[in-house]
Amino acid sequence: MRVEFINPFLSSMLNVMSTMAQMELVPEKPKLKKDEVAKGDVSGLIGMVSPETKGSLSITFDAPLALATMKGMVGEAPDEVNDEITDLVGEITNMVTGGAKRMLSEKGIEFDMATPIVVSGKSHTIHHKSKGPVVIISLKGDAGRAYIEFSFDE
Amino acid sequence: MRVEFINPFLSSMLNVMSTMAQMELVPEKPKLKKDEVAKGDVSGLIGMVSPETKGSLSITFDAPLALATMKGMVGEAPDEVNDEITDLVGEITNMVTGGAKRMLSEKGIEFDMATPIVVSGKSHTIHHKSKGPVVIISLKGDAGRAYIEFSFDE
Repeated sequence: MRVEFINPFLSSMLNVMSTMAQMELVPEKPKLKKDEVAKGDVSGLIGMVSPETKGSLSITFDAPLALATMKGMVGEAPDEVNDEITDLVGEITNMVTGGAKRMLSEKGIEFDMATPIVVSGKSHTIHHKSKGPVVIISLKGDAGRAYIEFSFDE
Repeated sequence: MRVEFINPFLSSMLNVMSTMAQMELVPEKPKLKKDEVAKGDVSGLIGMVSPETKGSLSITFDAPLALATMKGMVGEAPDEVNDEITDLVGEITNMVTGGAKRMLSEKGIEFDMATPIVVSGKSHTIHHKSKGPVVIISLKGDAGRAYIEFSFDE
């Protein structure tokens, strides 16, 4: 895992949540995911491909944080995770990855993005199966927790 | 969605399950996923990128079918979904997509694969967020059900 990948994904996540939903998340220190398991209720996942490497990114939300994000964006939110929320999480995943892609492109690192997939289901866990280590960053919001995880083939 | 995508993914799935785990799955007719929700306990997901389009694939298993697949491969299986099972589901996802990629390549349709991601969690659902329709194929095994779903930007 190249350390220069961490800040683009993290700053893009903080930026998207702040500008779209007026939500300030507090990140913990990035870690390598080993025995740690991050559980959440709704996750956006996206694949990335470049001539040099390939990888995957996930953003996992506690349901109350996903609902609060919708409320921050449009002023109201459903009571539980529905199609509106999975659309929103897919869109956030696209925007965060697109933002990181632009920042990495300025450093000469290029990749193409696949289309996002969203998983909903209480307390699920995500397992990235690339050949490289998985970086996980926990982010704390007033309504709950989110996790960004990403991994690339070495 | 181009109809010629359906058979490569379906026949690759049947082939991988049959040759790896001596498991004969019976597919139902492919459908467009609209209101239908496919629930499962462990899913492999992968992104695909080509110069013309991009998309995503998922393979969702009932836990008993995933465990039976491991048993069919190596003669024994854990009692519940663990890292061995998520590794296996990631590998199946890679092999099914790789098989479809080879078949589509013979027709002049090329794409690159990202790395697989595996989700575990009881009764989760998958939502593909490409711009095109989602094709879903239900497959029945003795130990439970699996679903392949895929979608590409039009």
